[in-house]
Amino acid sequence: MVKPVFFGLGIGPGDIELMTLKAARILNEADVIAYPAANGGESLARRIVGPLIPEHTTELVLPLPMSRQREPGRQAYDEGAAQIRDHLAAGRTVAFLCEGDPFFYGSFMYMFERLAQDFPTEVVPGVTSMTACAAAIGRPLAARNDVLKIIPGPLAEERIRAELQTADAAAIIKVGAHFDKLRAILRDMGLEARAQVIERATQGDQKITPLSDVPQGEHPYFSTILIYKGGESW
Amino acid sequence: MVKPVFFGLGIGPGDIELMTLKAARILNEADVIAYPAANGGESLARRIVGPLIPEHTTELVLPLPMSRQREPGRQAYDEGAAQIRDHLAAGRTVAFLCEGDPFFYGSFMYMFERLAQDFPTEVVPGVTSMTACAAAIGRPLAARNDVLKIIPGPLAEERIRAELQTADAAAIIKVGAHFDKLRAILRDMGLEARAQVIERATQGDQKITPLSDVPQGEHPYFSTILIYKGGESW
Repeated sequence: MVKPVFFGLGIGPGDIELMTLKAARILNEADVIAYPAANGGESLARRIVGPLIPEHTTELVLPLPMSRQREPGRQAYDEGAAQIRDHLAAGRTVAFLCEGDPFFYGSFMYMFERLAQDFPTEVVPGVTSMTACAAAIGRPLAARNDVLKIIPGPLAEERIRAELQTADAAAIIKVGAHFDKLRAILRDMGLEARAQVIERATQGDQKITPLSDVPQGEHPYFSTILIYKGGESW
Repeated sequence: MVKPVFFGLGIGPGDIELMTLKAARILNEADVIAYPAANGGESLARRIVGPLIPEHTTELVLPLPMSRQREPGRQAYDEGAAQIRDHLAAGRTVAFLCEGDPFFYGSFMYMFERLAQDFPTEVVPGVTSMTACAAAIGRPLAARNDVLKIIPGPLAEERIRAELQTADAAAIIKVGAHFDKLRAILRDMGLEARAQVIERATQGDQKITPLSDVPQGEHPYFSTILIYKGGESW
Protein backbone atom coordinates (compact mmCIF):
# COMPACT_ATOMS: atom_id res chain seq x y z
CA MET A 1 0.00 0.00 0.00
CA VAL A 2 1.19 3.49 -0.80
CA LYS A 3 1.79 5.48 2.37
CA PRO A 4 -0.75 8.25 2.85
CA VAL A 5 0.68 11.75 2.62
CA PHE A 6 -0.33 14.92 4.45
CA PHE A 7 -0.09 17.85 2.04
CA GLY A 8 0.07 21.54 2.90
CA LEU A 9 -1.35 22.77 -0.36
CA GLY A 10 -0.55 26.34 -1.40
CA ILE A 11 -3.43 27.39 -3.64
CA GLY A 12 -2.27 30.90 -4.48
CA PRO A 13 -3.77 34.35 -3.93
CA GLY A 14 -7.32 33.90 -5.19
CA ASP A 15 -7.49 33.51 -8.96
CA ILE A 16 -7.92 29.77 -9.55
CA GLU A 17 -5.55 29.99 -12.53
CA LEU A 18 -2.76 31.08 -10.19
CA MET A 19 -2.76 27.65 -8.59
CA THR A 20 0.21 25.47 -9.55
CA LEU A 21 -0.08 22.42 -11.76
CA LYS A 22 1.03 20.39 -8.74
CA ALA A 23 -1.66 21.77 -6.45
CA ALA A 24 -4.29 21.09 -9.12
CA ARG A 25 -3.05 17.51 -9.49
CA ILE A 26 -3.05 16.83 -5.74
CA LEU A 27 -6.48 18.42 -5.39
CA ASN A 28 -7.68 15.93 -7.95
CA GLU A 29 -5.98 12.92 -6.37
CA ALA A 30 -6.39 13.51 -2.62
CA ASP A 31 -8.85 11.37 -0.69
CA VAL A 32 -9.66 14.17 1.75
CA ILE A 33 -9.59 17.95 1.29
CA ALA A 34 -9.36 19.82 4.61
CA TYR A 35 -9.75 23.54 5.16
CA PRO A 36 -10.42 25.96 7.97
CA ALA A 37 -13.68 27.86 8.18
CA ALA A 38 -13.12 30.62 10.69
CA ASN A 39 -15.86 30.83 13.28
CA GLY A 40 -18.29 28.85 11.15
CA GLY A 41 -18.03 31.25 8.21
CA GLU A 42 -17.34 30.40 4.58
CA SER A 43 -13.84 29.26 3.65
CA LEU A 44 -12.13 31.51 1.10
CA ALA A 45 -9.74 28.67 0.24
CA ARG A 46 -12.68 26.35 -0.45
CA ARG A 47 -14.32 29.01 -2.60
CA ILE A 48 -11.14 29.46 -4.68
CA VAL A 49 -10.59 25.79 -5.50
CA GLY A 50 -14.24 24.68 -5.48
CA PRO A 51 -14.50 24.04 -9.23
CA LEU A 52 -11.49 21.69 -9.08
CA ILE A 53 -12.66 19.38 -6.26
CA PRO A 54 -13.90 16.07 -7.66
CA GLU A 55 -17.38 15.02 -6.56
CA HIS A 56 -16.32 11.88 -4.70
CA THR A 57 -13.76 13.69 -2.53
CA THR A 58 -14.35 13.82 1.22
CA GLU A 59 -14.32 17.38 2.56
CA LEU A 60 -13.24 18.07 6.12
CA VAL A 61 -14.27 21.49 7.41
CA LEU A 62 -12.28 22.55 10.46
CA PRO A 63 -13.71 25.32 12.64
CA LEU A 64 -10.40 27.06 13.36
CA PRO A 65 -10.49 30.49 14.97
CA MET A 66 -8.57 33.40 13.47
CA SER A 67 -8.40 34.73 17.00
CA ARG A 68 -5.04 35.76 18.37
CA GLN A 69 -5.68 34.32 21.81
CA ARG A 70 -3.52 31.25 22.06
CA GLU A 71 -5.53 28.90 24.26
CA PRO A 72 -8.80 28.51 22.37
CA GLY A 73 -6.76 28.32 19.18
CA ARG A 74 -4.59 25.58 20.57
CA GLN A 75 -7.59 23.42 21.43
CA ALA A 76 -9.23 23.92 18.03
CA TYR A 77 -5.99 22.96 16.27
CA ASP A 78 -5.60 19.90 18.50
CA GLU A 79 -9.09 18.78 17.57
CA GLY A 80 -8.61 19.53 13.87
CA ALA A 81 -5.30 17.68 13.83
CA ALA A 82 -6.95 14.68 15.49
CA GLN A 83 -9.51 14.51 12.70
CA ILE A 84 -6.80 14.70 10.04
CA ARG A 85 -4.79 12.09 11.94
CA ASP A 86 -7.74 9.67 11.82
CA HIS A 87 -7.91 9.94 8.03
CA LEU A 88 -4.15 9.50 7.60
CA ALA A 89 -4.10 6.53 9.98
CA ALA A 90 -6.83 4.95 7.87
CA GLY A 91 -4.60 5.24 4.80
CA ARG A 92 -6.22 8.30 3.25
CA THR A 93 -4.23 11.13 1.69
CA VAL A 94 -5.20 14.53 3.11
CA ALA A 95 -4.62 17.91 1.44
CA PHE A 96 -4.92 20.95 3.70
CA LEU A 97 -5.80 24.06 1.68
CA CYS A 98 -3.69 27.15 2.30
CA GLU A 99 -4.30 30.53 0.70
CA GLY A 100 -1.08 31.84 -0.81
CA ASP A 101 1.87 29.75 0.37
CA PRO A 102 1.62 27.39 3.38
CA PHE A 103 4.86 28.59 4.97
CA PHE A 104 4.46 32.32 4.29
CA TYR A 105 2.56 33.57 7.36
CA GLY A 106 0.13 30.69 7.08
CA SER A 107 -1.74 28.96 9.88
CA PHE A 108 -0.79 25.65 8.26
CA MET A 109 2.27 25.53 10.51
CA TYR A 110 0.00 24.74 13.47
CA MET A 111 -1.10 21.59 11.67
CA PHE A 112 2.41 20.86 10.44
CA GLU A 113 3.85 20.86 13.95
CA ARG A 114 1.13 18.49 15.12
CA LEU A 115 1.35 15.94 12.31
CA ALA A 116 4.64 16.10 10.41
CA GLN A 117 6.56 13.86 12.83
CA ASP A 118 4.05 11.03 12.47
CA PHE A 119 3.15 11.05 8.77
CA PRO A 120 4.94 11.74 5.48
CA THR A 121 4.25 15.44 4.98
CA GLU A 122 4.83 17.59 1.93
CA VAL A 123 4.47 21.32 1.56
CA VAL A 124 3.52 22.54 -1.92
CA PRO A 125 4.58 26.18 -2.26
CA GLY A 126 2.18 28.64 -3.84
CA VAL A 127 2.04 32.14 -5.29
CA THR A 128 1.84 34.59 -2.39
CA SER A 129 -0.63 37.43 -2.26
CA MET A 130 2.40 39.72 -1.96
CA THR A 131 3.84 39.08 -5.41
CA ALA A 132 0.31 38.95 -6.86
CA CYS A 133 -0.17 42.48 -5.50
CA ALA A 134 2.99 43.68 -7.24
CA ALA A 135 1.78 42.16 -10.52
CA ALA A 136 -1.60 43.83 -10.03
CA ILE A 137 -0.16 47.32 -9.61
CA GLY A 138 2.43 46.84 -12.35
CA ARG A 139 5.46 47.74 -10.29
CA PRO A 140 8.36 45.53 -9.15
CA LEU A 141 8.19 44.51 -5.53
CA ALA A 142 11.96 44.74 -5.20
CA ALA A 143 14.95 44.68 -7.50
CA ARG A 144 18.72 44.46 -7.65
CA ASN A 145 20.16 44.92 -4.13
CA ASP A 146 17.01 46.24 -2.46
CA VAL A 147 16.26 45.08 1.05
CA LEU A 148 12.59 44.07 1.01
CA LYS A 149 10.76 43.78 4.32
CA ILE A 150 7.50 42.08 5.11
CA ILE A 151 5.99 43.94 8.04
CA PRO A 152 2.86 42.75 9.85
CA GLY A 153 0.45 45.61 10.55
CA PRO A 154 -0.26 44.66 14.19
CA LEU A 155 3.32 45.49 15.24
CA ALA A 156 3.98 48.48 17.47
CA GLU A 157 4.33 51.85 15.78
CA GLU A 158 7.98 52.35 16.78
CA ARG A 159 8.98 48.99 15.34
CA ILE A 160 7.20 49.67 12.06
CA ARG A 161 8.82 53.08 11.78
CA ALA A 162 12.28 51.72 12.46
CA GLU A 163 11.91 48.95 9.88
CA LEU A 164 10.50 51.23 7.20
CA GLN A 165 13.32 53.70 7.81
CA THR A 166 15.96 51.30 6.50
CA ALA A 167 13.84 49.38 3.96
CA ASP A 168 14.15 49.91 0.22
CA ALA A 169 10.79 48.28 -0.33
CA ALA A 170 8.15 46.91 2.00
CA ALA A 171 4.94 44.95 2.05
CA ILE A 172 2.70 45.61 5.02
CA ILE A 173 0.50 42.57 5.58
CA LYS A 174 -2.31 41.87 8.05
CA VAL A 175 -3.46 45.47 7.71
CA GLY A 176 -6.86 44.65 9.19
CA ALA A 177 -7.87 47.07 11.91
CA HIS A 178 -4.50 48.88 11.78
CA PHE A 179 -5.11 50.96 8.68
CA ASP A 180 -5.32 54.36 10.38
CA LYS A 181 -2.15 53.74 12.37
CA LEU A 182 -0.29 52.61 9.25
CA ARG A 183 -1.47 55.56 7.18
CA ALA A 184 -0.39 57.99 9.91
CA ILE A 185 3.09 56.42 10.04
CA LEU A 186 3.52 56.46 6.26
CA ARG A 187 2.27 60.03 5.98
CA ASP A 188 4.56 61.19 8.75
CA MET A 189 7.54 59.49 7.08
CA GLY A 190 6.79 61.07 3.71
CA LEU A 191 6.01 57.68 2.16
CA GLU A 192 2.30 58.09 1.49
CA ALA A 193 2.87 58.95 -2.17
CA ARG A 194 4.93 55.77 -2.61
CA ALA A 195 2.32 53.43 -1.15
CA GLN A 196 -0.41 51.47 -2.90
CA VAL A 197 -3.29 49.71 -1.19
CA ILE A 198 -4.37 46.44 -2.81
CA GLU A 199 -7.55 44.73 -1.69
CA ARG A 200 -8.37 41.10 -2.55
CA ALA A 201 -5.58 40.77 -5.14
CA THR A 202 -6.46 38.64 -8.21
CA GLN A 203 -9.98 38.00 -6.95
CA GLY A 204 -12.99 39.17 -8.93
CA ASP A 205 -13.42 42.25 -6.78
CA GLN A 206 -9.74 43.29 -6.68
CA LYS A 207 -9.27 46.97 -5.88
CA ILE A 208 -6.12 49.09 -6.14
CA THR A 209 -5.90 52.57 -4.60
CA PRO A 210 -2.93 54.87 -4.10
CA LEU A 211 -2.75 55.32 -0.34
CA SER A 212 -3.18 59.08 -0.71
CA ASP A 213 -6.53 58.50 -2.49
CA VAL A 214 -8.10 56.34 0.23
CA PRO A 215 -10.81 58.58 1.75
CA GLN A 216 -10.35 59.47 5.39
CA GLY A 217 -12.55 57.19 7.46
CA GLU A 218 -12.32 54.25 5.04
CA HIS A 219 -10.55 51.16 6.32
CA PRO A 220 -9.60 48.59 3.69
CA TYR A 221 -9.53 45.58 6.01
CA PHE A 222 -8.48 42.78 3.65
CA SER A 223 -5.61 44.65 2.10
CA THR A 224 -1.87 44.75 1.61
CA ILE A 225 0.12 47.97 1.39
CA LEU A 226 3.14 47.96 -0.93
CA ILE A 227 5.78 50.65 -0.56
CA TYR A 228 8.64 51.26 -2.95
CA LYS A 229 11.14 53.86 -1.82
CA GLY A 230 13.46 53.68 -4.81
CA GLY A 231 12.97 56.72 -6.97
CA GLU A 232 15.29 56.11 -9.90
CA SER A 233 14.40 54.36 -13.10
CA TRP A 234 14.79 50.61 -12.99
CA MET B 1 -8.12 41.66 -34.31
CA VAL B 2 -7.26 40.86 -30.71
CA LYS B 3 -4.57 43.18 -29.43
CA PRO B 4 -1.25 41.41 -28.86
CA VAL B 5 -0.19 41.20 -25.24
CA PHE B 6 3.29 41.28 -23.72
CA PHE B 7 3.40 38.81 -20.83
CA GLY B 8 5.94 38.67 -18.02
CA LEU B 9 5.53 35.01 -17.27
CA GLY B 10 6.52 33.78 -13.81
CA ILE B 11 7.39 30.11 -14.26
CA GLY B 12 8.28 29.26 -10.67
CA PRO B 13 11.43 27.98 -8.99
CA GLY B 14 12.42 25.06 -11.20
CA ASP B 15 10.03 22.12 -10.86
CA ILE B 16 7.79 22.34 -13.92
CA GLU B 17 4.81 21.31 -11.77
CA LEU B 18 5.24 24.48 -9.73
CA MET B 19 4.22 26.57 -12.72
CA THR B 20 0.74 28.07 -12.45
CA LEU B 21 -2.16 26.92 -14.59
CA LYS B 22 -2.17 30.42 -16.08
CA ALA B 23 1.51 30.32 -17.04
CA ALA B 24 1.00 26.90 -18.63
CA ARG B 25 -1.96 28.19 -20.62
CA ILE B 26 -0.13 31.28 -21.86
CA LEU B 27 2.90 29.21 -22.73
CA ASN B 28 0.62 27.12 -24.90
CA GLU B 29 -1.11 30.07 -26.54
CA ALA B 30 1.68 32.61 -27.04
CA ASP B 31 2.99 33.24 -30.54
CA VAL B 32 6.49 33.99 -29.33
CA ILE B 33 8.36 32.74 -26.23
CA ALA B 34 11.27 35.00 -25.30
CA TYR B 35 13.96 34.29 -22.73
CA PRO B 36 17.40 35.50 -21.79
CA ALA B 37 20.47 33.33 -22.29
CA ALA B 38 23.23 34.93 -20.28
CA ASN B 39 26.43 35.34 -22.23
CA GLY B 40 25.38 32.77 -24.80
CA GLY B 41 24.86 30.02 -22.22
CA GLU B 42 21.83 27.80 -21.79
CA SER B 43 18.66 29.36 -20.40
CA LEU B 44 17.49 27.80 -17.14
CA ALA B 45 14.00 29.19 -17.76
CA ARG B 46 13.89 27.54 -21.19
CA ARG B 47 15.07 24.27 -19.68
CA ILE B 48 12.31 24.36 -17.03
CA VAL B 49 9.41 24.94 -19.40
CA GLY B 50 10.81 23.14 -22.44
CA PRO B 51 8.35 20.22 -22.38
CA LEU B 52 5.41 22.64 -22.45
CA ILE B 53 6.42 24.74 -25.48
CA PRO B 54 4.38 23.75 -28.54
CA GLU B 55 6.36 22.86 -31.65
CA HIS B 56 5.08 25.70 -33.82
CA THR B 57 5.96 28.41 -31.30
CA THR B 58 8.60 30.95 -32.27
CA GLU B 59 11.43 31.16 -29.76
CA LEU B 60 13.34 34.37 -29.24
CA VAL B 61 16.66 33.94 -27.47
CA LEU B 62 17.98 37.20 -26.04
CA PRO B 63 21.67 37.41 -25.14
CA LEU B 64 21.25 39.45 -21.95
CA PRO B 65 24.22 39.81 -19.63
CA MET B 66 23.91 39.03 -15.94
CA SER B 67 26.67 41.55 -15.45
CA ARG B 68 26.13 44.34 -12.96
CA GLN B 69 27.74 47.01 -15.11
CA ARG B 70 24.94 49.21 -16.30
CA GLU B 71 26.05 50.30 -19.77
CA PRO B 72 26.52 47.03 -21.64
CA GLY B 73 23.36 45.75 -19.95
CA ARG B 74 21.40 48.77 -21.08
CA GLN B 75 22.35 48.25 -24.71
CA ALA B 76 21.52 44.53 -24.62
CA TYR B 77 18.12 45.27 -23.10
CA ASP B 78 17.48 47.97 -25.68
CA GLU B 79 18.24 45.52 -28.47
CA GLY B 80 16.19 42.71 -26.87
CA ALA B 81 13.24 45.06 -26.34
CA ALA B 82 13.44 46.14 -29.99
CA GLN B 83 13.11 42.53 -31.10
CA ILE B 84 10.11 41.95 -28.82
CA ARG B 85 8.62 45.24 -30.05
CA ASP B 86 8.80 44.04 -33.66
CA HIS B 87 6.80 40.92 -32.82
CA LEU B 88 4.18 42.87 -30.85
CA ALA B 89 3.87 45.47 -33.60
CA ALA B 90 3.22 42.63 -36.04
CA GLY B 91 0.32 41.46 -33.86
CA ARG B 92 2.07 38.58 -32.15
CA THR B 93 1.65 37.81 -28.45
CA VAL B 94 5.00 37.52 -26.65
CA ALA B 95 5.63 35.72 -23.35
CA PHE B 96 8.89 36.57 -21.61
CA LEU B 97 9.99 33.72 -19.32
CA CYS B 98 10.95 34.66 -15.76
CA GLU B 99 12.28 32.23 -13.18
CA GLY B 100 10.32 32.59 -9.95
CA ASP B 101 8.17 35.71 -10.05
CA PRO B 102 8.74 38.50 -12.62
CA PHE B 103 8.57 41.32 -10.05
CA PHE B 104 10.52 39.63 -7.24
CA TYR B 105 14.13 40.62 -8.01
CA GLY B 106 13.69 39.72 -11.65
CA SER B 107 15.39 41.26 -14.65
CA PHE B 108 11.98 41.36 -16.35
CA MET B 109 11.55 44.91 -15.07
CA TYR B 110 14.11 46.10 -17.60
CA MET B 111 11.84 44.83 -20.38
CA PHE B 112 8.74 46.07 -18.60
CA GLU B 113 10.01 49.64 -18.44
CA ARG B 114 10.88 49.56 -22.13
CA LEU B 115 7.60 48.12 -23.44
CA ALA B 116 4.72 48.50 -20.99
CA GLN B 117 3.78 52.02 -22.08
CA ASP B 118 3.35 51.00 -25.69
CA PHE B 119 1.68 47.58 -25.50
CA PRO B 120 -0.89 45.89 -23.26
CA THR B 121 1.35 44.20 -20.69
CA GLU B 122 0.43 41.63 -18.08
CA VAL B 123 2.57 40.21 -15.31
CA VAL B 124 1.74 36.65 -14.25
CA PRO B 125 3.03 36.10 -10.71
CA GLY B 126 4.85 32.88 -9.92
CA VAL B 127 6.09 30.82 -7.00
CA THR B 128 9.33 32.35 -5.75
CA SER B 129 12.42 30.33 -5.04
CA MET B 130 12.23 31.76 -1.51
CA THR B 131 9.00 30.04 -0.48
CA ALA B 132 10.04 26.93 -2.39
CA CYS B 133 13.15 26.85 -0.19
CA ALA B 134 11.03 26.99 2.97
CA ALA B 135 8.89 24.12 1.69
CA ALA B 136 12.04 22.15 0.89
CA ILE B 137 13.49 22.44 4.38
CA GLY B 138 10.13 21.92 6.08
CA ARG B 139 10.17 25.06 8.19
CA PRO B 140 7.95 28.15 7.97
CA LEU B 141 9.61 31.13 6.36
CA ALA B 142 7.83 33.51 8.73
CA ALA B 143 4.75 33.46 10.91
CA ARG B 144 2.41 35.56 13.03
CA ASN B 145 3.95 39.01 13.55
CA ASP B 146 7.47 38.18 12.36
CA VAL B 147 9.31 40.77 10.33
CA LEU B 148 10.78 38.88 7.37
CA LYS B 149 13.61 40.48 5.42
CA ILE B 150 14.93 39.64 2.01
CA ILE B 151 18.58 40.61 1.99
CA PRO B 152 20.74 40.50 -1.14
CA GLY B 153 24.15 38.95 -0.48
CA PRO B 154 26.16 41.63 -2.36
CA LEU B 155 25.27 44.30 0.23
CA ALA B 156 27.94 45.70 2.52
CA GLU B 157 28.68 43.74 5.68
CA GLU B 158 27.51 46.49 8.04
CA ARG B 159 24.14 46.77 6.30
CA ILE B 160 23.59 43.02 6.39
CA ARG B 161 24.48 42.90 10.08
CA ALA B 162 22.16 45.76 10.96
CA GLU B 163 19.24 44.22 9.07
CA LEU B 164 19.75 40.75 10.53
CA GLN B 165 19.94 42.24 14.02
CA THR B 166 16.30 43.33 13.95
CA ALA B 167 14.87 40.59 11.69
CA ASP B 168 12.79 37.73 13.02
CA ALA B 169 13.40 35.78 9.84
CA ALA B 170 15.49 36.40 6.76
CA ALA B 171 16.20 35.08 3.31
CA ILE B 172 19.60 35.94 1.92
CA ILE B 173 19.41 35.86 -1.85
CA LYS B 174 22.06 36.34 -4.56
CA VAL B 175 24.59 34.53 -2.37
CA GLY B 176 26.90 33.93 -5.32
CA ALA B 177 30.49 34.85 -4.56
CA HIS B 178 29.56 36.26 -1.13
CA PHE B 179 29.25 33.00 0.74
CA ASP B 180 32.34 33.36 2.94
CA LYS B 181 31.38 36.90 3.96
CA LEU B 182 27.84 35.80 4.80
CA ARG B 183 28.98 32.80 6.79
CA ALA B 184 31.37 34.93 8.81
CA ILE B 185 28.60 37.42 9.62
CA LEU B 186 26.12 34.72 10.65
CA ARG B 187 28.72 32.90 12.73
CA ASP B 188 29.73 36.09 14.46
CA MET B 189 26.09 36.93 15.24
CA GLY B 190 25.44 33.48 16.67
CA LEU B 191 23.00 32.65 13.87
CA GLU B 192 24.93 29.90 12.10
CA ALA B 193 22.90 27.16 13.81
CA ARG B 194 19.66 28.78 12.65
CA ALA B 195 20.65 29.00 9.00
CA GLN B 196 20.01 26.53 6.17
CA VAL B 197 21.64 26.64 2.75
CA ILE B 198 19.40 25.57 -0.12
CA GLU B 199 20.89 25.03 -3.58
CA ARG B 200 18.74 24.76 -6.71
CA ALA B 201 15.43 24.44 -4.82
CA THR B 202 12.88 22.05 -6.40
CA GLN B 203 15.24 21.17 -9.24
CA GLY B 204 16.41 17.61 -9.75
CA ASP B 205 19.70 18.27 -8.00
CA GLN B 206 18.31 20.23 -5.02
CA LYS B 207 20.64 20.21 -2.03
CA ILE B 208 19.93 21.30 1.56
CA THR B 209 22.72 21.79 4.10
CA PRO B 210 22.67 23.32 7.56
CA LEU B 211 25.08 26.24 7.30
CA SER B 212 27.26 24.78 10.05
CA ASP B 213 27.75 21.62 7.95
CA VAL B 214 29.00 23.37 4.81
CA PRO B 215 32.72 22.44 4.65
CA GLN B 216 35.15 25.33 4.92
CA GLY B 217 36.30 26.23 1.42
CA GLU B 218 33.04 25.20 -0.26
CA HIS B 219 31.02 27.96 -1.90
CA PRO B 220 27.45 27.09 -2.82
CA TYR B 221 27.05 29.68 -5.56
CA PHE B 222 23.44 29.12 -6.66
CA SER B 223 22.00 29.10 -3.20
CA THR B 224 19.65 30.86 -0.81
CA ILE B 225 20.25 31.05 2.93
CA LEU B 226 17.18 30.98 5.16
CA ILE B 227 17.46 32.13 8.76
CA TYR B 228 14.79 31.75 11.41
CA LYS B 229 15.55 33.46 14.70
CA GLY B 230 12.35 32.52 16.51
CA GLY B 231 13.07 29.82 19.05
CA GLU B 232 9.67 29.04 20.49
CA SER B 233 7.28 26.44 19.20
CA TRP B 234 4.99 27.70 16.45
